[in-house]
Amino acid sequence: MRLRHKPWIKAAIEELKDDYVYLGDAAKNKGQWHQLLGKETLAVEIGCGKGNFIVGMAQLHPEQGFVGVETQEEIAYYPAHKAQEQELKNVKIIAGDATDLEEWFEPGEIDMLYLNFSDPWPKARHYKRRLTYRDFLHKYKQLLKPGGHLRFKTDNRPLFDFSLVEFQEFGLEIIALSYDLHHSDYDNPVQTEYEAKFSALGNKINFCEAVFK
Amino acid sequence: MRLRHKPWIKAAIEELKDDYVYLGDAAKNKGQWHQLLGKETLAVEIGCGKGNFIVGMAQLHPEQGFVGVETQEEIAYYPAHKAQEQELKNVKIIAGDATDLEEWFEPGEIDMLYLNFSDPWPKARHYKRRLTYRDFLHKYKQLLKPGGHLRFKTDNRPLFDFSLVEFQEFGLEIIALSYDLHHSDYDNPVQTEYEAKFSALGNKINFCEAVFK
Repeated sequence: MRLRHKPWIKAAIEELKDDYVYLGDAAKNKGQWHQLLGKETLAVEIGCGKGNFIVGMAQLHPEQGFVGVETQEEIAYYPAHKAQEQELKNVKIIAGDATDLEEWFEPGEIDMLYLNFSDPWPKARHYKRRLTYRDFLHKYKQLLKPGGHLRFKTDNRPLFDFSLVEFQEFGLEIIALSYDLHHSDYDNPVQTEYEAKFSALGNKINFCEAVFK
Repeated sequence: MRLRHKPWIKAAIEELKDDYVYLGDAAKNKGQWHQLLGKETLAVEIGCGKGNFIVGMAQLHPEQGFVGVETQEEIAYYPAHKAQEQELKNVKIIAGDATDLEEWFEPGEIDMLYLNFSDPWPKARHYKRRLTYRDFLHKYKQLLKPGGHLRFKTDNRPLFDFSLVEFQEFGLEIIALSYDLHHSDYDNPVQTEYEAKFSALGNKINFCEAVFK
């Protein structure tokens, strides 16, 4: 997602620091997220964009804690701002890159990981950058508690196919699978911005839930 | 697969009866296949066509027993004839329809099932005829020994997608998955006639192996 440069965001996001967003200092909460959010379970979305999903989930599940990770600071402002508007205390945003996950979370600290409409990196030579590539799965396995779940949505079919093979070869147990989530029996309580837009155009949404054993 | 009507086949296939092919009387061997083939394991291919695969596998694995099922009697002649030419004692052909599987095999009698390039039944309303539809999976589960495997190859992507969802919802464990079998690390010792022809044209072969738990 690319935004026009908005100089005011730099100042506005500073206002939300610590209460709603962490800018480069999320590591200080490592091992403390459950306590910080005051919840027994922690769900993390990697690549939360403008935050419709993670903030919507935090609203829908006040009994759970949520962290959204967004690599672009200028975008990370939006979910943090949404959380502030709704005075949600059970969701925090980290402005940072998923390659740094281990700096922010202790092994076993996360209960559920969400990957929604991740960058497909369509060029074959870039496959290692896809967030479902096995090196990332290794990271997720470390950070998820044993038996933790990964939920993955995308309208990009080549990325989905790539991911299923990665999941299978990594030894994940696939407990849900649909090539058309919006016309399936699976629950899908909150859509991402991208999902709403592209499913309205008739694009099918692929969905998979996998368990790290 | 459709063949021009060949009246000589009717007589020729009669010559191969019992030694290589069963025409409507396969049920007499129910529960006896291991003994009949003199092997400890039994692999069955549903829809063996002209038999490149099942006869090739029987050649390659003289230590295993094989049965090929082909619904069209005029086609069933060919694999039976191939087995005769090669004097193979570890492979038999059944001319009959897969809906009758339970009449030919005892529960738990089969170790491995092969589905290769099954009819995709592309019309949505025909999905119950696809050999990977859940009603067939129920049959297979009955006839396979506990922990028995199903190996499935197809170049038809919609059929493959449909099948993965059926497997997942049925609770099968997927232990191998490739969207391009011929460029994967999976072993593929024998091709079907159809597979050789269509992969030569550049069609990708999808492959999945699943375990009935």
